[in-house]
Amino acid sequence: MMVELFYWPTIQGRGEFVRLALEEAGVAYVDVAREAGGMARMLAAMDGPDHPPFAPPFLKVDGLTIGQTANILLYLGQHHGLAPSDEAGGLWVHQLQLTIADLVAETHDTHHPIATSLYYEDQRPEAKRRTADFIETRIPKFLDYFEGILARPEPKDYLLGATLTYADLSLFQLIEGLRYAFPATMARIDAGYPLLGALRDRVAARPNIAAYLKSERRLPFNEEGIFRHYPELENDEKS
Amino acid sequence: MMVELFYWPTIQGRGEFVRLALEEAGVAYVDVAREAGGMARMLAAMDGPDHPPFAPPFLKVDGLTIGQTANILLYLGQHHGLAPSDEAGGLWVHQLQLTIADLVAETHDTHHPIATSLYYEDQRPEAKRRTADFIETRIPKFLDYFEGILARPEPKDYLLGATLTYADLSLFQLIEGLRYAFPATMARIDAGYPLLGALRDRVAARPNIAAYLKSERRLPFNEEGIFRHYPELENDEKS
Repeated sequence: MMVELFYWPTIQGRGEFVRLALEEAGVAYVDVAREAGGMARMLAAMDGPDHPPFAPPFLKVDGLTIGQTANILLYLGQHHGLAPSDEAGGLWVHQLQLTIADLVAETHDTHHPIATSLYYEDQRPEAKRRTADFIETRIPKFLDYFEGILARPEPKDYLLGATLTYADLSLFQLIEGLRYAFPATMARIDAGYPLLGALRDRVAARPNIAAYLKSERRLPFNEEGIFRHYPELENDEKS
Repeated sequence: MMVELFYWPTIQGRGEFVRLALEEAGVAYVDVAREAGGMARMLAAMDGPDHPPFAPPFLKVDGLTIGQTANILLYLGQHHGLAPSDEAGGLWVHQLQLTIADLVAETHDTHHPIATSLYYEDQRPEAKRRTADFIETRIPKFLDYFEGILARPEPKDYLLGATLTYADLSLFQLIEGLRYAFPATMARIDAGYPLLGALRDRVAARPNIAAYLKSERRLPFNEEGIFRHYPELENDEKS
């Protein structure tokens, strides 16, 4: 059965973490809202009587409707070989994913520290203040953590070792997003995270991911998504 | 084997969602950091070589170290009858939990919209602005969603129907926390959420939970945790 992904059609956003997992696993899927009439179908599905999702992304597969990004990845991990099948390994990958998700949410709030319902332009002073702290304390705290995971007990190719999981795909996307949103910062601290950089390159070079990144299915980053490049936010930090 | 919970010793915080699950299930556990020498043990455990957690809470059980609140509940749900054993049911409960977690994180940011590293007093104007939107748009959006889940297809005792899951315990805690932090708001909108109010009362009356809430193990809400009562934040909304 064809998997249906429901997500906003013009941004990578949280849907991208799901797209990367589907692409890596070679799952045939339809990105519903990007097709004609798809947005109406997505909004209708959100109002369904059975297990309605709070927000996109959500997946329809095997008669299930599965919402929440990390929950979708939990499912895909088990069914498509993107997570260990044993309980301990599954929990560890999920724990890492939820930690990545925390930084993703914090990244969103750098440009929307006051309210999602307001435009960025209506909360720019607050965004500058939040971004300064994000760059100074939050990016290093999280990247130190993941670099440390990759380093112990000895340098590893992926978070769990030799085998890729969905958390590696998400970490790739996180690094890509941070590099897009905060290029000067990421260039400045890049040398401190050799294992993260190598993981990013390793994921990008996987055949299915490389093909996806070159395809039209991969939307570009833009200033509507989670990772936005507003030069004034990053530059403020250096002044 | 005794379960060990590691969390900050003076707040409910995210640890409370885990405590409620352990208490409801009647699991024997030690709240490590609240014991003599426990804080040092907790900090040492966070620096461990194997599956280090990014932050408390985390659980040591059966040789596993499990971090991230929702991930801990995923484990407890399966092992202690707080979630359906079938895949579809397990995913649905987890999806609901992650949605609750999103509002919990947003609640935290009402008093810390700029930086966790700063005191509330150093971001009060921004906190007032964020809280106003939180009260106006975010609380209703989330509570409408959960009330809707409880209402369909017909009014239910718990989110999944007749049987309690860990998501119900977390929803109880969310309502308690919002009532503590924003008492005027919650009193004003209370009549619009009869099923949520009934669920809250139903959870509070469960024998294990009722005993826990009366015990010294239940820490009071305070202004160090996630749900904080700063009257000036709520009052600002009404001016």
